[in-house]
Amino acid sequence: MTVNLRIPGPTPIPNDILTASSKQMINHRGPEFKALIESITGKTKKAFETTKDLYILTASGTGGMEAAVVNTISPGDKVLAITVGIFGNRFVQIAKAYRADLTVLSAEYGRAIDPAEVQRVLDANPSIKAVIVTHNETSTGITNDLANISKIVKGQFGKLLLVDAISSIGSIPCPVDEWDLDIVVGGSQKGWMAPPGLSMISVSDKAWEAYEEATTPKFYFDLMPAKRYLERAQTPWTPAVGIMFALEVALDKLAAEGMDNVHERHAKIAKMCREGVKAIGLQLFADESHASNTVTAVRMPDNVNGAELLGTMRTEYDVVLAGGQAELDGKIFRIGHLGHCSESDIQNVIESLVSTFEKLGVNPAKASLA
Amino acid sequence: MTVNLRIPGPTPIPNDILTASSKQMINHRGPEFKALIESITGKTKKAFETTKDLYILTASGTGGMEAAVVNTISPGDKVLAITVGIFGNRFVQIAKAYRADLTVLSAEYGRAIDPAEVQRVLDANPSIKAVIVTHNETSTGITNDLANISKIVKGQFGKLLLVDAISSIGSIPCPVDEWDLDIVVGGSQKGWMAPPGLSMISVSDKAWEAYEEATTPKFYFDLMPAKRYLERAQTPWTPAVGIMFALEVALDKLAAEGMDNVHERHAKIAKMCREGVKAIGLQLFADESHASNTVTAVRMPDNVNGAELLGTMRTEYDVVLAGGQAELDGKIFRIGHLGHCSESDIQNVIESLVSTFEKLGVNPAKASLA
Repeated sequence: MTVNLRIPGPTPIPNDILTASSKQMINHRGPEFKALIESITGKTKKAFETTKDLYILTASGTGGMEAAVVNTISPGDKVLAITVGIFGNRFVQIAKAYRADLTVLSAEYGRAIDPAEVQRVLDANPSIKAVIVTHNETSTGITNDLANISKIVKGQFGKLLLVDAISSIGSIPCPVDEWDLDIVVGGSQKGWMAPPGLSMISVSDKAWEAYEEATTPKFYFDLMPAKRYLERAQTPWTPAVGIMFALEVALDKLAAEGMDNVHERHAKIAKMCREGVKAIGLQLFADESHASNTVTAVRMPDNVNGAELLGTMRTEYDVVLAGGQAELDGKIFRIGHLGHCSESDIQNVIESLVSTFEKLGVNPAKASLA
Repeated sequence: MTVNLRIPGPTPIPNDILTASSKQMINHRGPEFKALIESITGKTKKAFETTKDLYILTASGTGGMEAAVVNTISPGDKVLAITVGIFGNRFVQIAKAYRADLTVLSAEYGRAIDPAEVQRVLDANPSIKAVIVTHNETSTGITNDLANISKIVKGQFGKLLLVDAISSIGSIPCPVDEWDLDIVVGGSQKGWMAPPGLSMISVSDKAWEAYEEATTPKFYFDLMPAKRYLERAQTPWTPAVGIMFALEVALDKLAAEGMDNVHERHAKIAKMCREGVKAIGLQLFADESHASNTVTAVRMPDNVNGAELLGTMRTEYDVVLAGGQAELDGKIFRIGHLGHCSESDIQNVIESLVSTFEKLGVNPAKASLA
């Protein structure tokens, strides 16, 4: 039986994309690569809904987050960090590592940030230069209201806005230009259905202005060499060519489906997942009014050993789910439904959960109420 | 006809390794990944001939070079940089970007560094803390005498020694522990015959001691999270799983051949390449006593347009060579013979060069003497 890989990335990869990833190598300074990088950059820009600059970095999404910070922030710059979970905290750690002067605005795990709070903090701290925010928080299954956050950060205050959209863009609407987002970071292993190892990053004119002033030391993630080399259809450092081959086919698949349809599919499957989980007596962890369309976090029923639950799902039913991270370890489990995911994949998750709880002798409805 | 990709990486990839790179995704925090990371880390350590720590980073080799610097050097630290070409200069740029206080020892392009010069500089500058050096300089086809450089840097002076071995290790002997090298950086797309996107980095106890003192800001390339996560058979950031699948098969192939045999094969094919080039009247660019066994640099004959030469080789004969980089652009061309390369591949390069010169109406022997 095929494994039903339902973690929030890497996602399962359709066969034609996998096949593309195993094409023979080419010269990364030759004409075939020129065609490849121009194709994937253009198509990713379309999916990002941006006409601004966009670069494809050979790195995990975390590398893209680091690029967002080191290219625009100087040590001592005042930065507002909005965090609602583990990945928001990671953005905080990156900014802290590079010596930003941080104000942290956080919401309880499982809740989105209230845009009014952002307004309050920016009102009270006029010297803040930039705001960093997670669009979709993978660790808790929450999607922040980025459209309204941007209206405040950009529309009212004209600050620089750096967005970790790794687990949203390509799956959940995140129109970069319409929302006036300065830097937006994506990751190849999410809704794009490609292998992990590439991070996409869009850069607005205002972000380039910030670049000119930013004194943070950088080299590998310096976006100026990326810009210069892209002008001649290359990357400054040897790129992950195989993943780029895969990404090209993936982008064509998404374009063929139509990004609006891709977003609708994610919304529909996510809703089905939440309803399925509730129907068998489990409780959602995240505030449902801001529930993510790429990952659903579920409270671990009392008296259930998380490792046993996930282990049984995996070994008995070939369903691979994600546990909770850091302080959420053992308290939640997470179902990824981004990228290559169908209704029957989610149906299989729900049915396997029912069977697993039976096997473990647990009634989730009762356990959750305990 | 199959393309004869003869650039110094990415190298052509054998079919079984390509096939492995297209295996379906797995949970990078699950048991299959545990087996994978433990396997490839252990096998890479064997090929590095080290029992010290080794990490596999999702990045180009340049990312590994940055990791070497940011984990061991603080701003203002005195560093001796040995450079004999473009990649040596890149190591200089990285150290400079992170504010090291640099002394640069360079050799003319096409020449190796004289270890006696290293001794002289270290004698004259007792406050130097670390030495950074390129083992094999891809841009000029030179292999530095790292064994004797290390005898001086480590044996006589006890300095920290950071080595860019990206285009050597796995192809040219570089026994990490025997030579007492503190940090050694490799890259998956070189002799390892895997796709680009992973950098391997070995770390000695002395390098970890330097880590404790190093104040350079870092996050993505911080080796401490890599160490902590490897203890539970994970990586801190989502790794390039597909390339790791490929690397595992590649490492098994190298082990089956035996690393000594791999090194001998590279030496034999490189010699054949140099002799073939000279036999048709071309001149080697690099000092032959330090000629690289992974890449041969050839002087561009006078009156030959480099772009036309490489273009004809590619379009007429399906042989892809590399040009010169930066100031060597148009002055040399380079033949890669690392990784998946046979004598017949090199024979094909030489024959195609002969045919191309005929087509261009050039007698390379006469042109080279002009």
